[in-house]
Amino acid sequence: MRAVDIIQKKRDGGVLTPAEIRFFVAGVTDFSLPDYQAAALLMAVLLRGMTPEETSVLTDAMVRSGSRVDLSDIPGVKVDKHSTGGVGDKTSIVIAPLVAACGGVVPMMSGRGLGHTGGTLDKLESIPGFRTNLSISEMRASLSAIGCALIGQTAQIAPADKKLYALRDVTGTIESVPLISASIMSKKIAEGIDALVLDVKCGKGAFMKTREDARTLAQSLVAIGKSAGVRTEAVLTAMNWPIGCAVGNANEVIECIDLLKGRGRADLVANSLELSYRMLIAAGVARDRSDAEARCRRALESGQALERLRAIIERQGGDPRVIDDYTLMPHAPEEHIIRAPIDGFVTELDAGLIGRASVILGGGRDQVDDEIDPAVGIMIPATVGDEVRAGDPVLRVLYRSSQRLGHALPLLDDAVLVSESPAPSMPMVMEEVV
Amino acid sequence: MRAVDIIQKKRDGGVLTPAEIRFFVAGVTDFSLPDYQAAALLMAVLLRGMTPEETSVLTDAMVRSGSRVDLSDIPGVKVDKHSTGGVGDKTSIVIAPLVAACGGVVPMMSGRGLGHTGGTLDKLESIPGFRTNLSISEMRASLSAIGCALIGQTAQIAPADKKLYALRDVTGTIESVPLISASIMSKKIAEGIDALVLDVKCGKGAFMKTREDARTLAQSLVAIGKSAGVRTEAVLTAMNWPIGCAVGNANEVIECIDLLKGRGRADLVANSLELSYRMLIAAGVARDRSDAEARCRRALESGQALERLRAIIERQGGDPRVIDDYTLMPHAPEEHIIRAPIDGFVTELDAGLIGRASVILGGGRDQVDDEIDPAVGIMIPATVGDEVRAGDPVLRVLYRSSQRLGHALPLLDDAVLVSESPAPSMPMVMEEVV
Repeated sequence: MRAVDIIQKKRDGGVLTPAEIRFFVAGVTDFSLPDYQAAALLMAVLLRGMTPEETSVLTDAMVRSGSRVDLSDIPGVKVDKHSTGGVGDKTSIVIAPLVAACGGVVPMMSGRGLGHTGGTLDKLESIPGFRTNLSISEMRASLSAIGCALIGQTAQIAPADKKLYALRDVTGTIESVPLISASIMSKKIAEGIDALVLDVKCGKGAFMKTREDARTLAQSLVAIGKSAGVRTEAVLTAMNWPIGCAVGNANEVIECIDLLKGRGRADLVANSLELSYRMLIAAGVARDRSDAEARCRRALESGQALERLRAIIERQGGDPRVIDDYTLMPHAPEEHIIRAPIDGFVTELDAGLIGRASVILGGGRDQVDDEIDPAVGIMIPATVGDEVRAGDPVLRVLYRSSQRLGHALPLLDDAVLVSESPAPSMPMVMEEVV
Repeated sequence: MRAVDIIQKKRDGGVLTPAEIRFFVAGVTDFSLPDYQAAALLMAVLLRGMTPEETSVLTDAMVRSGSRVDLSDIPGVKVDKHSTGGVGDKTSIVIAPLVAACGGVVPMMSGRGLGHTGGTLDKLESIPGFRTNLSISEMRASLSAIGCALIGQTAQIAPADKKLYALRDVTGTIESVPLISASIMSKKIAEGIDALVLDVKCGKGAFMKTREDARTLAQSLVAIGKSAGVRTEAVLTAMNWPIGCAVGNANEVIECIDLLKGRGRADLVANSLELSYRMLIAAGVARDRSDAEARCRRALESGQALERLRAIIERQGGDPRVIDDYTLMPHAPEEHIIRAPIDGFVTELDAGLIGRASVILGGGRDQVDDEIDPAVGIMIPATVGDEVRAGDPVLRVLYRSSQRLGHALPLLDDAVLVSESPAPSMPMVMEEVV
């Protein structure tokens, strides 16, 4: 088998055989395939597409480039969630303890932030001492003890994905539904789960701008999951403005703790509960939606979900006192307030610009090896739909460097719009793909 | 400027600016652009295309990656021809001395064979001692002394093309009209010519299988030449069966000498004269077609064209006695004859299969560093349209290794068809693009 023949076949719109796809992934994994041939094939895939069958085989080959964790000795249905990435999207930090407190088993493997969206691992690491680099056996121990673990991708999880992603990043081949799908699902399938709920973000602040594109991605992800024997479903949710009141790292963790104490903003609560309900039903813990609602309500009102987060922090080396004392979390030394220019309603909070501004402040990264400042970020005291008076704060910018603030402010000024009449409200959940 | 932005722009069907194209070619030339980014862009260009303006800028950037030879101090219009490659296509070896004998100035830079088509340099090097690696100053001296030179591409001629071609070969990005056009024309423009006649082959044995594809390529080539200030025209000629009676190297040179002695087969004569007439008119040596015909006839009948070939061989270190004594040329030790199975007419001589068989015998190369056996090849005593009797030779296979013969024979058996009634004849020149 010759790589150039495989490239030409895909270039001409052909359907690759499983053997050809496995040859490609094996070549990427063991470095026998030169990067230039991989890059040419990736571009051909981006422009010619892949059938659902090709995409499933690609995903499977990427799973097999490493090992698939076997969690079958741990009782219960192992269930995870994955979000395609939004600004202020911190639902994982709410959902893992909440679903575990309801009796679910949640082996949650997350990623780091790149570009304008943040990453769960970066947020968690703003908790002093918190370790995300657990080994698989440490993850098992956590699952057995407290029903969940919040960890990073280990080296044996889909190593081909790591190499392909790095190559896609520099060859203009990120934006391909089959390649995105295989990248997401190979990691999720390899972590050993039985069920998966996907949150496919859609809108100005999301990777998928239109409902059609988001639906296409959701369908691709669900089909791959099912073909790998994982119960998979997806919801499309709106991502036009940031979720919740914090964008950054430490401030997002504090927002999650607040939510578990019963003080969450409606949009973040709705997003977190929607996914938790689906996970509990998929895992067979809840009979139906109203049962799931009742279980989540009890776990929140009783404080069990909050205590589960404390247990996670404790097990993973973090300082559990942050739950009660937010001064133990990193705080930015400076604050700049952007105020409403007129009486009216917040009608626009551009998630893309706010995410970008957070990166500029130091809260995210443009390059994979950039350092993150966990303390900086943006607080959003009034969200879209809220009524404000002239002079009310609409954004509070937590910053360290006034030079960085200077670069971020023009974006933030453009990101907010206060109008005399409110914008029509839109539902968070747009549709489901099962 | 970032390479990934240029890749994404072309991927999404955008038109690259001259600055972007020059950035890409400069990066390829000085190795600052990684191969994987070049490969991704080449695939995007292949699938998204380039406008004529983009293709002209690409060609110009490739010319400027080296130097453009200045032949303005040599009197007369410098004229060359280029063929897109056929099987048995040896017209260069006829045309250079013929046009020079008529008063044209022909700085002919040729290539080597790769795949199923042969290369002029390989054919010439079958003449004992013949050197094709003349320097530019040696070429100048030859042009001044005898009006022509038959040489290979020097290092300063479009070095970006050499690198891009090698990368295209292994990334499935050969078959792109803009990339093919820029590759051909950058070399021709850089050699310092004023006028160019292109022979765009079309048919089963050619790179372009259909008339539409051949016309598209011809139009692209002519447009580039004109935009670079080179008088350029193209003819589309049929390439369904081999041209002339020899496919190989030494045997093709002998066929050319025979033609210059007045013993050429009609198709090779017609192809060579068609291009020579156009070159003489483009160079202003002949007033019109009938003047060009008269000049060529005189040059052939007087023996001046033959003597010019002798002068070329002499100047370029070859043994000029081969003109009179073919035993001084390499000869294969063995011959295998394929005979007509029935009385009838030769209706098929598949150029692709015969070219491929010649490579297998050792007369061509699959890899750029394969060695060539100048002696082996295939003689075609009866061409398409000729009447044959059962038992008459239709192919004479000149070979050295019986193992290679064994691999070549099945292709040759499939290549020939003798039928009871003749196939309709087709014109060699299909159309012109000026």
